[in-house]
Amino acid sequence: MQRLKIWKGGWSLLKSSFERGSTHVNRSEPSSRAYSQGPSPFGLLFDIDGVLVRGRTPIPGAKQCFKKLVDRNGKYKVPVVFVTNAGNCMRQTKAEHLSQLLEAEVSPDQVMLSHSPLRMFTQFHKMSVLVSGQGPVEEVAHNLGFEDVVTIDTLREAYPLLDVVDHDRRPKDKIPPTKGLRKIDAVILFGEPVRWETNLQLIVDVLLTNGSPDNNWASARSPHLPVLACNMDLLWMAEAKNPRFGHGMFLVCLENLYKKVTGYDLKYEALIGKPSVVTYNYAEQLIRQQAEKLGWTTPVKRLYAIGDNPMADIYGANLYNRYLQTVHLDKVQLKAKGGSGAVDAPTDSAASQTSSSGLGRSAGGGEAEHELPEGCSSILVCTGVYSKDQEELPSDPSETVTEQRIFHGHRDFRFDPSLMQPSFVVNDVQEAVELVFQQERWPLE
Amino acid sequence: MQRLKIWKGGWSLLKSSFERGSTHVNRSEPSSRAYSQGPSPFGLLFDIDGVLVRGRTPIPGAKQCFKKLVDRNGKYKVPVVFVTNAGNCMRQTKAEHLSQLLEAEVSPDQVMLSHSPLRMFTQFHKMSVLVSGQGPVEEVAHNLGFEDVVTIDTLREAYPLLDVVDHDRRPKDKIPPTKGLRKIDAVILFGEPVRWETNLQLIVDVLLTNGSPDNNWASARSPHLPVLACNMDLLWMAEAKNPRFGHGMFLVCLENLYKKVTGYDLKYEALIGKPSVVTYNYAEQLIRQQAEKLGWTTPVKRLYAIGDNPMADIYGANLYNRYLQTVHLDKVQLKAKGGSGAVDAPTDSAASQTSSSGLGRSAGGGEAEHELPEGCSSILVCTGVYSKDQEELPSDPSETVTEQRIFHGHRDFRFDPSLMQPSFVVNDVQEAVELVFQQERWPLE
Repeated sequence: MQRLKIWKGGWSLLKSSFERGSTHVNRSEPSSRAYSQGPSPFGLLFDIDGVLVRGRTPIPGAKQCFKKLVDRNGKYKVPVVFVTNAGNCMRQTKAEHLSQLLEAEVSPDQVMLSHSPLRMFTQFHKMSVLVSGQGPVEEVAHNLGFEDVVTIDTLREAYPLLDVVDHDRRPKDKIPPTKGLRKIDAVILFGEPVRWETNLQLIVDVLLTNGSPDNNWASARSPHLPVLACNMDLLWMAEAKNPRFGHGMFLVCLENLYKKVTGYDLKYEALIGKPSVVTYNYAEQLIRQQAEKLGWTTPVKRLYAIGDNPMADIYGANLYNRYLQTVHLDKVQLKAKGGSGAVDAPTDSAASQTSSSGLGRSAGGGEAEHELPEGCSSILVCTGVYSKDQEELPSDPSETVTEQRIFHGHRDFRFDPSLMQPSFVVNDVQEAVELVFQQERWPLE
Repeated sequence: MQRLKIWKGGWSLLKSSFERGSTHVNRSEPSSRAYSQGPSPFGLLFDIDGVLVRGRTPIPGAKQCFKKLVDRNGKYKVPVVFVTNAGNCMRQTKAEHLSQLLEAEVSPDQVMLSHSPLRMFTQFHKMSVLVSGQGPVEEVAHNLGFEDVVTIDTLREAYPLLDVVDHDRRPKDKIPPTKGLRKIDAVILFGEPVRWETNLQLIVDVLLTNGSPDNNWASARSPHLPVLACNMDLLWMAEAKNPRFGHGMFLVCLENLYKKVTGYDLKYEALIGKPSVVTYNYAEQLIRQQAEKLGWTTPVKRLYAIGDNPMADIYGANLYNRYLQTVHLDKVQLKAKGGSGAVDAPTDSAASQTSSSGLGRSAGGGEAEHELPEGCSSILVCTGVYSKDQEELPSDPSETVTEQRIFHGHRDFRFDPSLMQPSFVVNDVQEAVELVFQQERWPLE
């Protein structure tokens, strides 16, 4: 297995919790369950970067692991869904890439990108939305259901005096006229763009002019246009030795520039992608679809989320687990009171973890209509952002990890060390899958 | 005069202080002085953007004003120096541009860019410095005295795995080898670069690896490499209706990303350009040289700084004025104690206004060897960032302008409303020059 030394980051608190090899960390985990009939009703959620691949380099063992996950006919033994915070591309493209990489067929229905839950945000689909990101963002937006999409490039061309950081792209000679463009109603941040200065300037212009950037900047007192952001990952692992900047870094820039100019906080209408609950709700829907395709009639009882990033994969899976537990508790209480047991609006803290809406069920996942899994376990691998071989670890983890000091989560997510504690820590994805099948007493070979 | 409505920004406190037309605001200003012999010993410091030009469009009256400033032989009547926070170009280029614009000869000796004082930072000249900016940054650095200059592009090519935000610029096919590059000793931020994501990633990599970005990120506890930043302007006025992002915005991004990743504050070795005192010390040297060229034998007694940006031009001129007053006070006290009157190290607060060094006399301006001006007056024009026609002004300025709310100065500069109060407010540069000549009882026509 590829071993990495990484900068100690914010996760040294994990160090004291485990030894080398697969380790059961979370004691609240159910240690024995017996599924007496039918296929073992569990599903697997795989992160991609740092788990299956680094940059364009496959992680050793990933391919072998997927060989075991499919039967002789290439059919998956259990429902498998890939949950990545990557965006800036299409599900189809990602699925093709994974099929090639893993030498196992991956269908687009098994792939969930950070922006996938936007499909459920139908209230924005008819609005004129400004999209920020790279790659086929316009196509991605249309595929998600957005009908009126304005790109940053379209905005630049319509208002040629706005983007002047790059001397070489400033208007030459005669000042070109401003083209009339319809008012922007909302801003969607898909993923890290290129030329951050252009996107930062134009997004701030749009927010301060209430969607018409040829108007004067208005007072920032009134609420600004809705901003929906996908993928909060601050850092991710590519081929380089050290973590690379992700979309979370772009958001840090945008939040701070907006605050510096206006004195007010930028507010998100929704934060989508791991670790938000809306993402796991959507992933669970995909798992359910996969289970149906496999002909399973028993609902999936447990999810296992395998990832390398404590702040995205582990925090997210644990937050969703907390959410599931609250839903079940509410259900039991409702039943005790003589209700139907259908859950309409659980008032759990997991779903409303942040000040932004859209993290829980704001986009209307219909969890009342089917049986949700009992829980979601989190499995941390050491082939990506997180590594066991951290250097200079303090004897007392609380000395280095405080909310003020190093918290690599998004501004709007509360620092909660218990949510960063994985159910299990293993070396790599192969060990992770073996562990799950062992836990579920299901033959892998 | 071109009139603009601009967003109220942080300067509404000025509103109540003046009426339309040239207005004497600062009551501490000496109201009458008599220069009995020789030419009136004063000098003019002109800001460029928002005072003489917006983008590539000259501001009405600028040319007329300069016609009056030179005699029949094209010789300036008083010492004139252009003090701009622009960088990313050469003095020679700026001088040529101004000559053409103003139809008056401007020599490179009269032009001061934000990075010009780096010439005095000789302790860094032999180090290997990473430079960030756009345009001829390498040439600019060499001209300033730096011998070993590494550009961001050189760094990108040497370490091809580091800059991966732009999908299209990621290494294709085989992963290229990392080239050995000498260790970086210091980072110099000349001005706003293009592709902020690339510069932000590589600068953070250099800081966290102590100058060798192919090493692992190290603990951020130890002090990082020296960072010298030129031009803190958050916003500036080009042709667009609203202010545009300046280098100060890039610094806000860098500071916040560094803090988010490490938990620690980014520290500057020096912050150069207006409003730092080191910039005005340097400008005063240039004024002195111009006075000598004019054959003046009497030292310049007063400087007038004309600008459009309360946080750069007005704050800077007032901070320098405060510095001059402290120097003179120290001198008087030393004389009273029987000393020589030469000032070695005045312990004024103006020079040490911020936590960063290099703002005062760290680069060794030899102010002991000559007579400094008695004071520096600040004149605010309304053709750029600042406009009198602000909308939605509150009746009580203290309600909207607080340090927490809207302060457009740099993080390391204390919010001091008294330093943002101009000595005079006028409509445009023409009125500014007329006012000065009137004040100094010197014929302009």
